[in-house]
Amino acid sequence: MAGYDTVTLMTDRGQVDEAVGVVRSILADMAPSANVVDLTHGIERHDVRAGALALARSVPYIAPGIVLASVDPDGSSQRRSIAVEIGDGVGVMVGSDNGLLANAVAIVGGAGRTVELTDERYRLPSAGSLWELRDVLAPAAAHLCEGVDLAELGPAIDPASLLPSLVPIPRFENEQVLAEVMWVDHFGRVQLNLEAEMIDHLGNTIVTTINSQQRVVMRHRSINDVPDGQVGLVTDTFGLMALVSPQRSAAAEFDIDVGAEVVLSEAR
Amino acid sequence: MAGYDTVTLMTDRGQVDEAVGVVRSILADMAPSANVVDLTHGIERHDVRAGALALARSVPYIAPGIVLASVDPDGSSQRRSIAVEIGDGVGVMVGSDNGLLANAVAIVGGAGRTVELTDERYRLPSAGSLWELRDVLAPAAAHLCEGVDLAELGPAIDPASLLPSLVPIPRFENEQVLAEVMWVDHFGRVQLNLEAEMIDHLGNTIVTTINSQQRVVMRHRSINDVPDGQVGLVTDTFGLMALVSPQRSAAAEFDIDVGAEVVLSEAR
Amino acid sequence: MAGYDTVTLMTDRGQVDEAVGVVRSILADMAPSANVVDLTHGIERHDVRAGALALARSVPYIAPGIVLASVDPDGSSQRRSIAVEIGDGVGVMVGSDNGLLANAVAIVGGAGRTVELTDERYRLPSAGSLWELRDVLAPAAAHLCEGVDLAELGPAIDPASLLPSLVPIPRFENEQVLAEVMWVDHFGRVQLNLEAEMIDHLGNTIVTTINSQQRVVMRHRSINDVPDGQVGLVTDTFGLMALVSPQRSAAAEFDIDVGAEVVLSEAR
Repeated sequence: MAGYDTVTLMTDRGQVDEAVGVVRSILADMAPSANVVDLTHGIERHDVRAGALALARSVPYIAPGIVLASVDPDGSSQRRSIAVEIGDGVGVMVGSDNGLLANAVAIVGGAGRTVELTDERYRLPSAGSLWELRDVLAPAAAHLCEGVDLAELGPAIDPASLLPSLVPIPRFENEQVLAEVMWVDHFGRVQLNLEAEMIDHLGNTIVTTINSQQRVVMRHRSINDVPDGQVGLVTDTFGLMALVSPQRSAAAEFDIDVGAEVVLSEAR
Repeated sequence: MAGYDTVTLMTDRGQVDEAVGVVRSILADMAPSANVVDLTHGIERHDVRAGALALARSVPYIAPGIVLASVDPDGSSQRRSIAVEIGDGVGVMVGSDNGLLANAVAIVGGAGRTVELTDERYRLPSAGSLWELRDVLAPAAAHLCEGVDLAELGPAIDPASLLPSLVPIPRFENEQVLAEVMWVDHFGRVQLNLEAEMIDHLGNTIVTTINSQQRVVMRHRSINDVPDGQVGLVTDTFGLMALVSPQRSAAAEFDIDVGAEVVLSEAR
Repeated sequence: MAGYDTVTLMTDRGQVDEAVGVVRSILADMAPSANVVDLTHGIERHDVRAGALALARSVPYIAPGIVLASVDPDGSSQRRSIAVEIGDGVGVMVGSDNGLLANAVAIVGGAGRTVELTDERYRLPSAGSLWELRDVLAPAAAHLCEGVDLAELGPAIDPASLLPSLVPIPRFENEQVLAEVMWVDHFGRVQLNLEAEMIDHLGNTIVTTINSQQRVVMRHRSINDVPDGQVGLVTDTFGLMALVSPQRSAAAEFDIDVGAEVVLSEAR
C-alpha cells in the first residue's frame, strides 16, 4: 500500500456553486491525509483545448501524486473515464478520455499503465444521473491515495488508443508566420503558439496583422523593457512569444481573445 | 478531548476580498491541525434559501467534522448564533439560527445537542462592530476542533425552537404541475423542485410554461441523451428533475433563473 | 532547522487562470508539510495600495509563519524581491519592495532581519522571462518553511530602505472632514479612512458630500441598527467608519468606489 499524498484539481466548474466543494469533500472524507491543491476551476466551460494547454503549462510544477482533471462534463457517458500512470508511478492523471490529459502526459514522459475506470466498487452511487467527476473520478483519486492499485480500478487499455490533445501549430507562408492566440492571462497578456526562434528571421521590429488591422510591435527581452503604454512582443515566463503591455491588458489594446489568428511579418 | 479534524466552509462572502481568508487564517491559527474544506463562498448575497439548498445537496458528501456556514450576515446581532450536534456527535453545524442549517440537519438525522454561542471566552474581540462569522462562528469551530465540548460554548437550547429552512413545495392543479426553479448551476442546468415520479403521469412529451411562453420538451434518461441544440428534461445527478442542454445553458435558452415558476402539463 | 508550517497567500492574480494554482503546486512540492492558506487573490490588478490595506486589515488574524504577497507583478525586475522577518522570527513576509508589505509589517511591530532574495540557489529556473511570484517568491517561502535560514536567501538590507505603504490621511478643514473610500467590501459596505473619534464633533446627524451631491446620514452603533432601505454611518468590524445599508449595497446607493472623496460636515 504505497498510495499518494497530493491531489491536484483542475476543472471547468467554476467556484460559484458548490460542485467543486463536493469534490473536495469527497477527497477529505475518503482520503483524509491527502493534500488537495486547486490548480484552477476557471477553465472556460467545455473548452477541452484550453484545459489541456493550462495543464501542459502547469505540469512541470505540479507536485507528485494524483492529478484530477475534468473539462466538458457533457457526454461523459459516451467516452471513457481513465487513469494514466506517469513517471513510473510517481503520479497518476485521472480524467476523461477527451484529449484533456494527453499534452501533459506527453510532457512528463508519456503514459505508463492506463486503465478505464469501470469497476463499480470504486465508484460512488448517484441519486440520479451519473456525475463523472463526483461519482467516478473523485472516488478513483481517493482510492489511489489510499493505496488501491491502479489495476484494481478497471481493465487495462492501450495508451496509444487515448484521444490526443489538439495543439495549434503555427504556419509559415511567404515569410509570414501565422500564429494563434493560445491563452490570455489574468493581466491580458496574450500567449501565442510560437517559440522565440520561430520568428528570429523577422528581426526586432515586427508587423502584426490581427483582424486585418496592422500594427508594428517591437521585440523586447521582458515586459519590464516594454515602454509604458505600448504593446511589445516578449518571451513569456513559459518560453513562448507573447504580446504584453506593462500594467495594461494587451488583449484589450489589440481587441483579441483565445483562438484569434495573429499574422507576423517583417517590417519594411 | 476528542475534537474534530475537518472544517467545511460555506458562505455568501465571495472570494474577491479577504473576508473568507481571514476566517481561514483564524482556523489555521486556532486549530492548526484541522483540514479546511471550501464548499463554496458563492451563495448569492443574503440568499438564505439558496444556501440551505446548496448545503442540503452537499451534506451527503461532506466529511465528518465541523460545518461552518454563514449566509446573510446582516441582522446577526438580532438572531442566535448556534452550534448543532449531528449524527450523535460525528459532526457539528455552526451558523446562524436563520434557517440556513435546518434542511441539512434534517437530512443527516436531525439535531442532537444544540447550544447558543454566547460564551465570551470562546469568541474573538472586535476592534469595532461584531462580525458574527469572524468573531463568533469561526472561533467556535476552532475550539470544537481543539476538543472543547459543545456544552462549553453556551447554554443549551431546544432544537425544536430553531428556524426551519424554507423549501419550495410543488403544487398539483388540474393535472398541471406547478414547479419552481431551485438552482441554476455553473453550466446553466435548471434544477426544479420535482422528483421523477411526480411527473410520471405527464408522459415523455411535456409542455412547459415559463413566463406565459409554452415550449415542448422531451424527457430523457440523462443529458447525454438530449439531442444537441435541444433542451430536455432529465433526472439530474441529485435525483431531481432538471432542464438541461448539452454544452449549452438551458437557463439562457429558456431565460429563467432561480425562483421562477415552471408549469408542466401533458402534451395533447 | 526550525522552519515554518503555514504559508498565507495574497495576490492580484485572480482565480480564473492557473497562476495561483502553480504557486500552490510549488509549495505542495517543495514544502509538503506546510499548510497553505488563501487570504485572497482578488486584489484589483496592480493596485498596491488596495493590497497593502487588505493585508493590514487581515494581519492581526494571520497564523504565524510565512506571508507570501504579490500585487502588481509588472516591473518586478526593476525592484527588489524581499523577505522581512517579523515578531522576532515568528513569521516572515515575502514579497516585492513596492510598499505592499510595509503597513502590515508596521502593525506587527516592525521589520527584523530583512534580505533581498537574490541567491539563485533558492530560485526556480524559468523557461522564459522571470516570473517573480513563481520563480523567486514561492520557492523562497518554501525554503523558509523547510528550515533554510533567512540569511541564506540573499544579502541583508536595511529595513529603513523599504518603500513605505501609501495610507490615505483624512484632512480637517473648516469643520469639514475630507475622507476617502479605502475599501468597498463584497456586500457594498464602504470603509472610510476615519476612526470614530475623528467625527465625534459632527454629532449623530451628518451631511455627506460625494460628487457634489449632499445626503444626510445618521450615525448608528452597528449595521443592525440602520433602518431597512437607509444608508447609515457605523463603526465597522475593523474599528473604522463605514457607510452601510442592511442587505443592500451602500456603494451602489451612493454610487461610489474605492478612492472617492467623501466630505463629512455637521447638519445645520
